[in-house]
Amino acid sequence: MSRLRFKISMSLDGFVAGPNQSVKEPLGAGGMRLHEWVFTLKAWRAMHGLEGGEVNESNRVVEESLAGIGATIMGRNMFGGHPGPWDAKNPWNGWWGANPPFHHPVFVLTHHAREPLVLEGGTTFTFVTGGIAAALDLARKAAGGRDISLAGGAKAAQQYLAAGLVDEMEIHLAPVLLGSGERLFDGVGADLHGLELVRTVAAPGVTHLKFTKGDSPWPRQK
Amino acid sequence: MSRLRFKISMSLDGFVAGPNQSVKEPLGAGGMRLHEWVFTLKAWRAMHGLEGGEVNESNRVVEESLAGIGATIMGRNMFGGHPGPWDAKNPWNGWWGANPPFHHPVFVLTHHAREPLVLEGGTTFTFVTGGIAAALDLARKAAGGRDISLAGGAKAAQQYLAAGLVDEMEIHLAPVLLGSGERLFDGVGADLHGLELVRTVAAPGVTHLKFTKGDSPWPRQK
Repeated sequence: MSRLRFKISMSLDGFVAGPNQSVKEPLGAGGMRLHEWVFTLKAWRAMHGLEGGEVNESNRVVEESLAGIGATIMGRNMFGGHPGPWDAKNPWNGWWGANPPFHHPVFVLTHHAREPLVLEGGTTFTFVTGGIAAALDLARKAAGGRDISLAGGAKAAQQYLAAGLVDEMEIHLAPVLLGSGERLFDGVGADLHGLELVRTVAAPGVTHLKFTKGDSPWPRQK
Repeated sequence: MSRLRFKISMSLDGFVAGPNQSVKEPLGAGGMRLHEWVFTLKAWRAMHGLEGGEVNESNRVVEESLAGIGATIMGRNMFGGHPGPWDAKNPWNGWWGANPPFHHPVFVLTHHAREPLVLEGGTTFTFVTGGIAAALDLARKAAGGRDISLAGGAKAAQQYLAAGLVDEMEIHLAPVLLGSGERLFDGVGADLHGLELVRTVAAPGVTHLKFTKGDSPWPRQK
C-alpha cells in the first residue's frame, strides 16, 4: 500500500516556522533560516527549472524524498493566501504560479469548500473539507500505488502524527534557533506511533533524521 | 583559556526532562527515555565503576566529553534534593553517594549559601550564590587550565547559553517525544552566539550534534 511520507525542516529548538507568518513572509520572521541548506542544491534548483547548483549529501536526501510520490497533502496555511472563506472574485491560487512544481494531484485540508483548481503540468489542487482521513483516502486513490507526500505545515502534520498515520518522517534539522514561532510537535503527545530513527545524514548546514515504521525496508539506526 | 563545554540529552521535541520532576524521579515522567542510549555503554559503566558494556560510536563521544575536564558547573536542581534553603539537620549531599563520579571541583548554582561539601575521590561541591559569571570564574581558577563541563540542568544551561558563554555544546538527540516537561532552549532566544554545527555522529538510539564557536579546532560540518 502507498505510504504517507512526511518531511520538514525544523530548527534545533523545534520550530518549523517563525512568528508572524504572512503572505509577504509565509515562513514567519527568521523562517528562511530553516531552508538555507536547500536553496543552493542542484536537486532543488532542478525542481524549480533552474540549472546548476551544489551536489552534496543533501541532494541524495532530496532526490529520495521526491521519488515515487503520486500525490501530495498539505494544510490550508501552506497553500496560503488568507484565513477564512475563499475570495471568489480574487481567488488565491497558491504560491507556485501557473505551473507548480508538484506535477501530480494535491489535496488541501480546509474548512471552506472550493472547486478543484487545475493548473499546468499535471498539478490539480483539490480542496478537502472532510478532515485528514478523507484527504488521505482521496490521495491514496489518486496516487495510483505510489506514495503520498505530506508537505506540511505544522498543523496538518500534527494531526497526521497524533493519529499515527505517518509511515515515514524525515526531519531536516537546521542548526539554528528561532526562539518563537510554530512548533512541529505541539500537541502531538509523547508517542511517535512506531516511527523509529533509521538513518542520520550529515550535510552542510543541516542534519537529516529519517524515521520509519517497523514494516519499512530500513533497519533501525546502528 | 579553558573552554566551557556543555552536553545534554534532548528529545526530538526539545525536552531535557519530563514533567513532575521529584527526588524519586529526578528526570521527570518519561525522562529516562532520553538516556537509554548511554546506560549500556562501556564508557558510562566504567565511569560508575562497572565492568563490561557496549562499544559503539557513542563511546567515542562520551569519552571525548569526559576528557580534559578540570571542573564542573551545575544548577541547584541537578544537584537536587529539595527547593529553598538547605536543611542543616538532614543535608542533601547529591545523588551520587560518598564517591561521586566527578573527581574534580564542582560548582553548584544556588540562591542559598552553604559550606563546601568535600566528598571522596577528589569531588568537592562548592555552592555559589553570586550567579553564572561568578561560578564560571571560580570554575576556571579551579580547572587549572583544563576545560569546564556545564552539566545542566535546563535552567543553568539557558542562562549560560543566553549570555553567550558556552564554547562547545553537544546535543545527544534522542529520537523520542516527551510531549511535556522542561525545554532546553526556553527563553534562550534566536541566537546561538556563534555556536556552529561541526559534527554529527549517528549511533544506536541517538544522534550526537556537536557545536563549537569559530575559534575551535573543529571545521564546520560539510
